[in-house]
Amino acid sequence: MGYPETFEGFAVFDPSPETWSSVKRWEYTPKPFEDHDVDIKIETCSICGSDVHSATNGWHKKGAEYPLVVGHEIIGKVIRVGPKVTDFKLGDRVGVGAQAQACLKCKLCKSNNEIYCPQLVHTFGSDYHNEDGTTTHSQGGYSNYARINDFFVFHIPEELSNEEAAPMLCAGITTFSPLVRNIPKELPEGQTKPHIGIVGLGGLGMMAIQWSRALGCETWVFSRSSRKKEDAFKLGADHFIATGEDKDWVKKVEFDLDLVVCTANSTEGFDLNTYLRTLKVGGKWVNVGLPETPFTVHPRSFMANACFMGASHLGSHVEMNRMLKLAVDKGVRAWVEKIPISAEGVKEGLEKCRYNKCRYRVALTDYEKAFGDK
Amino acid sequence: MGYPETFEGFAVFDPSPETWSSVKRWEYTPKPFEDHDVDIKIETCSICGSDVHSATNGWHKKGAEYPLVVGHEIIGKVIRVGPKVTDFKLGDRVGVGAQAQACLKCKLCKSNNEIYCPQLVHTFGSDYHNEDGTTTHSQGGYSNYARINDFFVFHIPEELSNEEAAPMLCAGITTFSPLVRNIPKELPEGQTKPHIGIVGLGGLGMMAIQWSRALGCETWVFSRSSRKKEDAFKLGADHFIATGEDKDWVKKVEFDLDLVVCTANSTEGFDLNTYLRTLKVGGKWVNVGLPETPFTVHPRSFMANACFMGASHLGSHVEMNRMLKLAVDKGVRAWVEKIPISAEGVKEGLEKCRYNKCRYRVALTDYEKAFGDK
Repeated sequence: MGYPETFEGFAVFDPSPETWSSVKRWEYTPKPFEDHDVDIKIETCSICGSDVHSATNGWHKKGAEYPLVVGHEIIGKVIRVGPKVTDFKLGDRVGVGAQAQACLKCKLCKSNNEIYCPQLVHTFGSDYHNEDGTTTHSQGGYSNYARINDFFVFHIPEELSNEEAAPMLCAGITTFSPLVRNIPKELPEGQTKPHIGIVGLGGLGMMAIQWSRALGCETWVFSRSSRKKEDAFKLGADHFIATGEDKDWVKKVEFDLDLVVCTANSTEGFDLNTYLRTLKVGGKWVNVGLPETPFTVHPRSFMANACFMGASHLGSHVEMNRMLKLAVDKGVRAWVEKIPISAEGVKEGLEKCRYNKCRYRVALTDYEKAFGDK
Repeated sequence: MGYPETFEGFAVFDPSPETWSSVKRWEYTPKPFEDHDVDIKIETCSICGSDVHSATNGWHKKGAEYPLVVGHEIIGKVIRVGPKVTDFKLGDRVGVGAQAQACLKCKLCKSNNEIYCPQLVHTFGSDYHNEDGTTTHSQGGYSNYARINDFFVFHIPEELSNEEAAPMLCAGITTFSPLVRNIPKELPEGQTKPHIGIVGLGGLGMMAIQWSRALGCETWVFSRSSRKKEDAFKLGADHFIATGEDKDWVKKVEFDLDLVVCTANSTEGFDLNTYLRTLKVGGKWVNVGLPETPFTVHPRSFMANACFMGASHLGSHVEMNRMLKLAVDKGVRAWVEKIPISAEGVKEGLEKCRYNKCRYRVALTDYEKAFGDK
């Protein structure tokens, strides 16, 4: 068979430590094509930390199903649209992030919070409850095609190349949404710009620093060593703090930040209690990484400055379009390394991502070569 | 000796489980009288949960010093003012809460956040660093006199009796400050009032419910059983949820609250992960109790609705005066049981507070009888 009956991708068959990255070609049946669906022939998909967590089942998701094709930073061309799709036509270059569906009727969906809809379907690893009563497990972008509800498909501005844009669909929106939602609207007298901290410089941090600057903020970047200092300044940082190289680092920025976006992907050795001291009274700390183990936090840590800790998940349709426009207006671009898609390429890319060996995202490319016209 | 060289109070001598509430009369030397100090002859002091935590050393404070006189919800009359005091004169009826001093010069103090000043001195159990170079350990309001910096002394409106006002100085301001700082200024279309949750109905909850109503909010009260339901409505609740009596309670209020003020004093059996589901996207959870053990929280719990958890400590000078005016304007009153001060009375009061046996605050009274003119 083949498109449109079946899609083909590079799938994880076994999430155990020896085999998680050894993907194999796999043919699968996508969800039934519905009136709001858009079929996309994929050209690029970049590799997100969530791909690794899912490939290893690091979040210990109950009932996680394998084979699983991961990938949710997808760019491609529209090749088919359902009869109710009005925003897209054949040949349009489009992107898809980590969300593929929501009910679009509840109070969350109706208030630009569809990403928090209890019915949300993630681009891979979730269950579609189809209109015909069947259920289909969603599969991601290390595949030749994607079939996605039109509300979760986005036009990609011509100024951005495939690889420059792909990481924006997840890493980009994941850091953009908490910034636009939480940057303070009013500043104390004498302060001209919001003071924003970005913890961690990887795929998420690389985007967060650029958004912070593009949104007019003064930006502090926190990293364990000064290895990435030069990159941080190139990306738009105003200040760089190597927390592992100065035991008194917190004194440089105590009670100073309005908002910190933490992209750290692990709680191991992470001194949250000290980090919280960087916040102004009432300041906010937002986790956008999703570590595999919980934090232990004493209420007292929040009491020294009445600060808040929260989290954020992706971003809304409205925010996605606003973000892509800002990227064009302010010259924001993802920094990527390209690897042609293949079983070996996916393995290399996933491992680079897991062990922080890329600068700062891997984009899988050359889909045409791997999949041909299938 | 006696006033002004020495003060006398009922002190905890040993915080161990058998003796923590067995206070004894104790004469001590107060801090030197400085230019901004006000001496107060105490008439009433109500009993706060912090008094219990301190009497038992439940927070495991390093270097906690005993004997210790606790108490920081103090009402009395001014009997002496330093040469730089301009707001108070002899005979004024005044109140003192849990803070007795701050530097009043740093950026926190200069922005109505003196309660977060790193130099803050608590009314009892802290060290004063005196102008003459000496150090004095602070002692609280189960005493005949208090000596306090004038910035932390407040006029008590004549409409409020001693007992009605005393709990406002700590329980009141502790719940008022996070409300006025975090009640959203803008509401979504169709919502007429902010939606506020108050968790726990004890000394703090009793005040929080009244402030929430006085500030024009729709108020949900959460308690384990329905034992206090009638009181909650009398205090101004619009809704009451007994979380221990309905396993699906969260469905009644899921994604509905803008702000929750949690007055729970213990993390034991406390299902924070479920409670967080009551919050709207971006909603805030503020802990004002200070439990003795930490919370364990998974970042994922915050991701379902991008909510925030924080804490708050007391409130500012400006907020204290605003609160006392609101109490007069809207008829807010603390509900108290009176117990005359004595070694037995303090013991009874502390134990009632610890085991949630009071409705909802104990005020120690009849100081004149206990201390006479000493």
